Amino acid sequence: MIVQKYGGTSVGSPERIKNVVRRVAKYNALGHQIIVVVSAMSGETNRLIGLAKEMQAQPDPRELDMVVSTGEQVTVGLVSMGLMQEGLKAKSYTGAQVKIITDSAFTKARILSIDEQNIRADLANGYVVVVAGFQGIDKEGNITTLGRGGSDTTGVAIAAALHADECQIYTDVDGVYTTDPRVVPEARRLKTITFEEMLEMASLGSKVLQIRAVEFAGKYKVKLRVLSSFEEEGDGTLITFEEDEKMEQAIISGIAFNRDEAKITVRGVPDKPGIAYQILGPISEANVDVDMIIQNVGVDGSTDFSFTVHRNEFDKAMDILKNQVQNHIGARNVVGDNKTAKVSVVGVGMRSHVGIASKMFRTLAEEGINIQMISTSEIKISVVIDEKYLELAVRVLHKAFDLDLDQEPA
Amino acid sequence: MIVQKYGGTSVGSPERIKNVVRRVAKYNALGHQIIVVVSAMSGETNRLIGLAKEMQAQPDPRELDMVVSTGEQVTVGLVSMGLMQEGLKAKSYTGAQVKIITDSAFTKARILSIDEQNIRADLANGYVVVVAGFQGIDKEGNITTLGRGGSDTTGVAIAAALHADECQIYTDVDGVYTTDPRVVPEARRLKTITFEEMLEMASLGSKVLQIRAVEFAGKYKVKLRVLSSFEEEGDGTLITFEEDEKMEQAIISGIAFNRDEAKITVRGVPDKPGIAYQILGPISEANVDVDMIIQNVGVDGSTDFSFTVHRNEFDKAMDILKNQVQNHIGARNVVGDNKTAKVSVVGVGMRSHVGIASKMFRTLAEEGINIQMISTSEIKISVVIDEKYLELAVRVLHKAFDLDLDQEPA
Repeated sequence: MIVQKYGGTSVGSPERIKNVVRRVAKYNALGHQIIVVVSAMSGETNRLIGLAKEMQAQPDPRELDMVVSTGEQVTVGLVSMGLMQEGLKAKSYTGAQVKIITDSAFTKARILSIDEQNIRADLANGYVVVVAGFQGIDKEGNITTLGRGGSDTTGVAIAAALHADECQIYTDVDGVYTTDPRVVPEARRLKTITFEEMLEMASLGSKVLQIRAVEFAGKYKVKLRVLSSFEEEGDGTLITFEEDEKMEQAIISGIAFNRDEAKITVRGVPDKPGIAYQILGPISEANVDVDMIIQNVGVDGSTDFSFTVHRNEFDKAMDILKNQVQNHIGARNVVGDNKTAKVSVVGVGMRSHVGIASKMFRTLAEEGINIQMISTSEIKISVVIDEKYLELAVRVLHKAFDLDLDQEPA
Repeated sequence: MIVQKYGGTSVGSPERIKNVVRRVAKYNALGHQIIVVVSAMSGETNRLIGLAKEMQAQPDPRELDMVVSTGEQVTVGLVSMGLMQEGLKAKSYTGAQVKIITDSAFTKARILSIDEQNIRADLANGYVVVVAGFQGIDKEGNITTLGRGGSDTTGVAIAAALHADECQIYTDVDGVYTTDPRVVPEARRLKTITFEEMLEMASLGSKVLQIRAVEFAGKYKVKLRVLSSFEEEGDGTLITFEEDEKMEQAIISGIAFNRDEAKITVRGVPDKPGIAYQILGPISEANVDVDMIIQNVGVDGSTDFSFTVHRNEFDKAMDILKNQVQNHIGARNVVGDNKTAKVSVVGVGMRSHVGIASKMFRTLAEEGINIQMISTSEIKISVVIDEKYLELAVRVLHKAFDLDLDQEPA
């Protein structure tokens, strides 16, 4: 049993949907049971959001989900029709019809449960089941969406619920690369990558897979494979649970980056318990996602607290801090910069190797790139830099860590 | 409490939706509780059907409903957003969310029940409720559509379920006319028309309202009004239950017609019980709607059986008759003509007036128009003629029955 998820570009036109249909038919002929999860046709979601914005300056989230969720609903119907035209039995489902129950956080809902009974019955009866990605319903029956890229999450969640053998994510790239090939032409495809690395790569902006999908896959041990929907051959990149021997050879798997990072610093914060919560609580209540968080050792009972948010939420976050937080906690002031970018080196190998950080910092220093913030985890080191140096930083790090070399890096 | 139904042209663009919003806001300011029922934006349903046909030569009905029903879903979200932008409280519902339960006749489903509890609660809380027309779900949770024009039916059905004071159908015409003004420029708007007349007018092709909507309205005594969505003023045409005095003065309310009529005759049918069923049973099972049915007195134990169908279903009906019916019942042959049209004179006044039929037939004869079939009811007389004479027939009948005169005809 295979779940195949196709993104918006893969189903962007009737002709492209026919390619998807042929691929599904091929797998079906091999005796696999197949669940197809699809996104909206490329451009459709933006078209719908555009209409919404013509009606309401800040579209109501519930109504926006009502409108936007139609994109996938159209695709599932079209894919089913295409499969029937090829002589297969097919049946489409909206998120509501599968009963993909989510919370009520419109436009960024989280899946709570999936009722896989209908799908299982259809598969047993020889149907290819086609499910709308990106959407669900809350307990009151309101239509919700999982946020951009949520179709990946739908695919993995369904694979988990059905204990599918593999969840294949078809996209417009043929796998996970050592970095974005548009920035570094020498970037190479990884045959395998661990879940942990993938999590770091995805969250740091590689954009091949939505981070929540990877989390889901890791949590439920779903075998995940990223493949190109435009190439007939190729095994893509398999996302594995175990670190095999080969991985130990490569210290760094890739260079991830994120252009859309904005940094905010609350200066002169009293260095006492509860301050971090008092700063980030209101931010979180406003549904602003926070990425890096940095707080250094305080001096004279006062410290600076910094964090990064998505650039689109910079104004909102600054507004909250200046008007609700600053005086309340007795901070000196709030400063920010939305012209920053984040670059990270990622690799499970760095656990057992020293010197990765110093090599990274030296490489950047040699190019005159100032590091504004640093954050580390077990398998990655991230730095915030001026966005104008982003491409340069990625290229020099890719080279410094030998990712350009024509060997199997992971 | 008022139900306002807006058709595809009325919500054809964000600008037009804003007009709808302003009208709803105006009624809301007067203290009315309002339920808005909307169609898909004009052109959208055809766009979706076009996509479907690119995928499958004969789109699967279940999948077609899945795809096409998104049209209204987009509109309800946009209308709600527009209302909120104007400061009103608004909430949208799909057919499934209202629980408009239908049978499973995809693409032409019939409403079985409506659960109005959620709507009632929202109205009590000050919301304008916006409901997707044209759609429902069957008992298995499959999305169904009511067929073209089904949004009218949704509007009336909701008005009936909620015991609304009036169901206003906004369309691109400002009421019901004595005949189509595009054919007869002298056609005039009727201030009132009876349900019976409206039923005959609608089914015979006036196309202002879907016939099922009028049936529903009559059955549940819903006060129905047809209005223009493009004019600020005007009372449109009220569809009444009672024949008042004025109606007695006018014998004929209007001339209805239908271009899309195809006639079929089964010749040499044995004149014995059960034959009509044996002919129409298979037609009905294939979901082909039959309009006029004519069977004359038989001669020598044999008769001819004629009926009309929509032109689009002519080939399908002919095929069924030739391959399944003709030999089975021992008929001589099956002949048909899809270049025909139907013209009818309609009016409750004709009950008490003689000579309407002869006046109609004489008027047509004077223009050399041959009558191919005749069918009558209490309040209408219909004839099938060669389609090339259609406009001529409508014009001369409109004049012959004094409908051109500048007096209140109904």
